Amino acid sequence: MLAAAYEMLSEAGLGGFSIDAVSRRSGVAKMTIYRHWPSRAALLLDACSRMATPAEVPATGDLRGDILQLASGVARQMQSKRWSSLLPSIIDAAERDPELAALHARQNAAVTAAFRAVIDRAKSSGELPDGVDTTAMIAMVMGPLVYRRWFSRETIEPAFVETVVDNALRTFRAVPVARPKD
Amino acid sequence: MLAAAYEMLSEAGLGGFSIDAVSRRSGVAKMTIYRHWPSRAALLLDACSRMATPAEVPATGDLRGDILQLASGVARQMQSKRWSSLLPSIIDAAERDPELAALHARQNAAVTAAFRAVIDRAKSSGELPDGVDTTAMIAMVMGPLVYRRWFSRETIEPAFVETVVDNALRTFRAVPVARPKD
Repeated sequence: MLAAAYEMLSEAGLGGFSIDAVSRRSGVAKMTIYRHWPSRAALLLDACSRMATPAEVPATGDLRGDILQLASGVARQMQSKRWSSLLPSIIDAAERDPELAALHARQNAAVTAAFRAVIDRAKSSGELPDGVDTTAMIAMVMGPLVYRRWFSRETIEPAFVETVVDNALRTFRAVPVARPKD
Repeated sequence: MLAAAYEMLSEAGLGGFSIDAVSRRSGVAKMTIYRHWPSRAALLLDACSRMATPAEVPATGDLRGDILQLASGVARQMQSKRWSSLLPSIIDAAERDPELAALHARQNAAVTAAFRAVIDRAKSSGELPDGVDTTAMIAMVMGPLVYRRWFSRETIEPAFVETVVDNALRTFRAVPVARPKD
């Protein structure tokens, strides 16, 4: 079912994507599909979340390496994977559908789960203070990438990702390398 | 023309918005409308750009105050103005229409023009090094706000805006207040 949805999206993009078309392709009755996914957008969201390879929790040995690996992976996927051009239509639909908005927020939390794991580990090891606001730190890393991809429409260079990561680490008092004093 | 489009959007949102409806409301022939705005999305984009009050260049006396004022204004508008729930549909359409993507990037540049002015002024006065990458700095401020509004769907508190601004300023070596050494 989701495989059929996934294939359709990969081949044709959003254009030909509908519950009707997915039903035809998968041979599953429309009513059955609607029982699991109340709308086209919900099915789209679920199919997309499978298109985005969920990041594994890295273990490079230090927090900067871990966060940089995750952020670089996100930047790469945003610029190459089909889901990245489908995501705005989900965000758009979520603006007018509270249920879909909640679903989208949950999916976003799943996408950023590896960030959370890495940050929690750094808190346990003392590399980050316990009081660090995890969601704020994630927003500080993800935000500038998201902004470049969908708002200013600029290329996301590796040097930019590094600046963003170092920026967030410095704010949360955890830059592990010696830096010149301001 | 744009006034009619603006009113329709303000009243009914995206639902009832079409070139047809705008033509009916304004009394302007459809062909005339199409001559100026090749698509519904282009007209939508233009109408939205007028809904977002363009920020004036602040003059609080220091860079931090200026950037904070701009960022707070953006955060406030994102959470209260109608255009903020219309923007994703423009971004979505821009993914499949290069011309609209270029238009959207230009509109985004206009929205962030006041940031640019403030950063340029700080470079002239020596408050920021000449070499600062202006678009990177803007991405660092706008990104986390955008991420919270449309991706993680969290409230943007004033304290978060302050953290984001201080974060960016620190990275670009321009925090004007004394800070404890790390």
